[in-house]
Amino acid sequence: MGDLIAAQLTEDSLVASLKRVLGEPSGSVRVGIGDDAAAWKAPASHLSLITTDMLVDGTHFRLSATTPDDLGRKALAVNLSDIAAMGGRPAVVVLALGLTPAIDETWLIAFYRGIADLARSSGCTVVGGDIVRSTVFTIGVTVAGDVRRTRMRLRSGANSGDVLACTGALGLAAAGLRVLDAGIGATLDAQDGEAVCGAYLRPRPRLREGAFLGGSVAVHAMMDISDGISSDVARMARSSAVDAVVDMRLLEPSASLRAAAGALKADPLELMLHGGDDYELLVAVSRRAFRHVATALKHRCGTSLSPIGHFELGDGMVWIEDDAGRRPLEPRGYNHLG
Amino acid sequence: MGDLIAAQLTEDSLVASLKRVLGEPSGSVRVGIGDDAAAWKAPASHLSLITTDMLVDGTHFRLSATTPDDLGRKALAVNLSDIAAMGGRPAVVVLALGLTPAIDETWLIAFYRGIADLARSSGCTVVGGDIVRSTVFTIGVTVAGDVRRTRMRLRSGANSGDVLACTGALGLAAAGLRVLDAGIGATLDAQDGEAVCGAYLRPRPRLREGAFLGGSVAVHAMMDISDGISSDVARMARSSAVDAVVDMRLLEPSASLRAAAGALKADPLELMLHGGDDYELLVAVSRRAFRHVATALKHRCGTSLSPIGHFELGDGMVWIEDDAGRRPLEPRGYNHLG
Repeated sequence: MGDLIAAQLTEDSLVASLKRVLGEPSGSVRVGIGDDAAAWKAPASHLSLITTDMLVDGTHFRLSATTPDDLGRKALAVNLSDIAAMGGRPAVVVLALGLTPAIDETWLIAFYRGIADLARSSGCTVVGGDIVRSTVFTIGVTVAGDVRRTRMRLRSGANSGDVLACTGALGLAAAGLRVLDAGIGATLDAQDGEAVCGAYLRPRPRLREGAFLGGSVAVHAMMDISDGISSDVARMARSSAVDAVVDMRLLEPSASLRAAAGALKADPLELMLHGGDDYELLVAVSRRAFRHVATALKHRCGTSLSPIGHFELGDGMVWIEDDAGRRPLEPRGYNHLG
Repeated sequence: MGDLIAAQLTEDSLVASLKRVLGEPSGSVRVGIGDDAAAWKAPASHLSLITTDMLVDGTHFRLSATTPDDLGRKALAVNLSDIAAMGGRPAVVVLALGLTPAIDETWLIAFYRGIADLARSSGCTVVGGDIVRSTVFTIGVTVAGDVRRTRMRLRSGANSGDVLACTGALGLAAAGLRVLDAGIGATLDAQDGEAVCGAYLRPRPRLREGAFLGGSVAVHAMMDISDGISSDVARMARSSAVDAVVDMRLLEPSASLRAAAGALKADPLELMLHGGDDYELLVAVSRRAFRHVATALKHRCGTSLSPIGHFELGDGMVWIEDDAGRRPLEPRGYNHLG
């Protein structure tokens, strides 16, 4: 095997290699890779969840700028982030790949290893897929999972008066992408470089946080931040039919984001507002319970929950507020068709 | 709307248009298009099923040679065929699309209409997806569904002595593809042209047949025929660890296949053995019960079940047998990496 190029492989022999990399399926799986469909036993009392993403070389990643292992992890992470945002947990993964001749078997096995590692640590299993020829390397990931009905949170539950908050730190991944693009990683302090480039290359889906937040009745709405908060807050506001106000005085760039933005001659607040790929959770939390929820999340998961604004009566607008007053926030996040 | 090209659309506005085309989700769906993930209620006593396929312009179809409506139906049909082959029924569909600038909104809506029509008549709903930019039009379809545990059939259950049989007719789709490629549809009798081109362009997933066959204890193994029987019988034989014998004397080309093969100067038996895209079901049925099962299937679904050989002790070989004797059958069906 090794450096065989994919064009010389048959689908059946490749499937056999990949089955070895992926290892034994987890307990709920009844039929794994190799049959017409996979089968698993979903918990009887839960709702089933499903989400899919397509990632295309040149649009969502660059083969030349990522390791196969990181790319595999990230392709899965973006889907797990959607499951996390529903308050759910993942069960099974199916992978559809459009391969170009540039992808050899060694590369593909490392890619699957990245996926398998994150799947294992997230409690799910790759149970099937499809491998075809394409002229551009394309990854289609679908994750199915489940959620206890009372734990599920939608985008549409935000109420006027709720605190708008997010987990972790914003803007790091956007800075990381720009640092990698500009090739200036070496000019940063190692810790700052890893903070921003690591956030871009190796996002960690907030599964524990999502399940914990979904378990609180004070959390009214939840979604993941994939396209930047200027776009994603707008989606939550519109779905919930309330206005959202992002308070710029609450946005605090981390030290690493400041350092990277300095090297990039970029505004760290712009990266926080419009940068994509954060894969943090955006939530609407009752004002009264906010401090309690944030403390409990920190205690349980070690993850911060930072207020960045609030919701008020309105019809789905997003406002930005600072000492100079209030103005509409234009969505300038990632448009998948842009 | 209308002739807007996709590059001018935003994802959010496109999603709104497509939601209208897709209509109201079916009863089991709790969260449809527009949230991080979709949610539905699976029957508590059943196993859950999932299957995915990727279709790439130039490899699996040619944009220039299909209507958007037919392409949408077919993209879904190939996945429904996998669910049928497990004895299951589909519940939800997620669609990932890599769009090129050649795809305009009118085209896309017709494509979704084809999908929505087949989804509706098959008892499932499109609940989500992802729409991205690509350099080649790419369709990723994932279907999740469910099956009563006792009704599920795998590839691996064939026993020595079982009859090897398939539903419907083989080779029609392969002939249809070649007729379309050669542009000789007009030289065929209208009925023959429709029989072969329709089989290629508008395959019908054998959902009722799969559920019925899975309900019979005499059916030991089942899979769908997507790559041609020379490849797919080999997969069933290998999975079941028995040899399969395809009896050429049992392969009876239909009148339409004969007519198309004549016009193509092709051997109809070669098309039946190696042609892909049949989307019929391949089954291993106990010899004693075969006639009864075939009669009942015809009665219940109006679909024939034709014996094409049998299984015998061995280690996964496929043999072809005719009056001249027996020889190994080389898989020459569709290799997704070829």
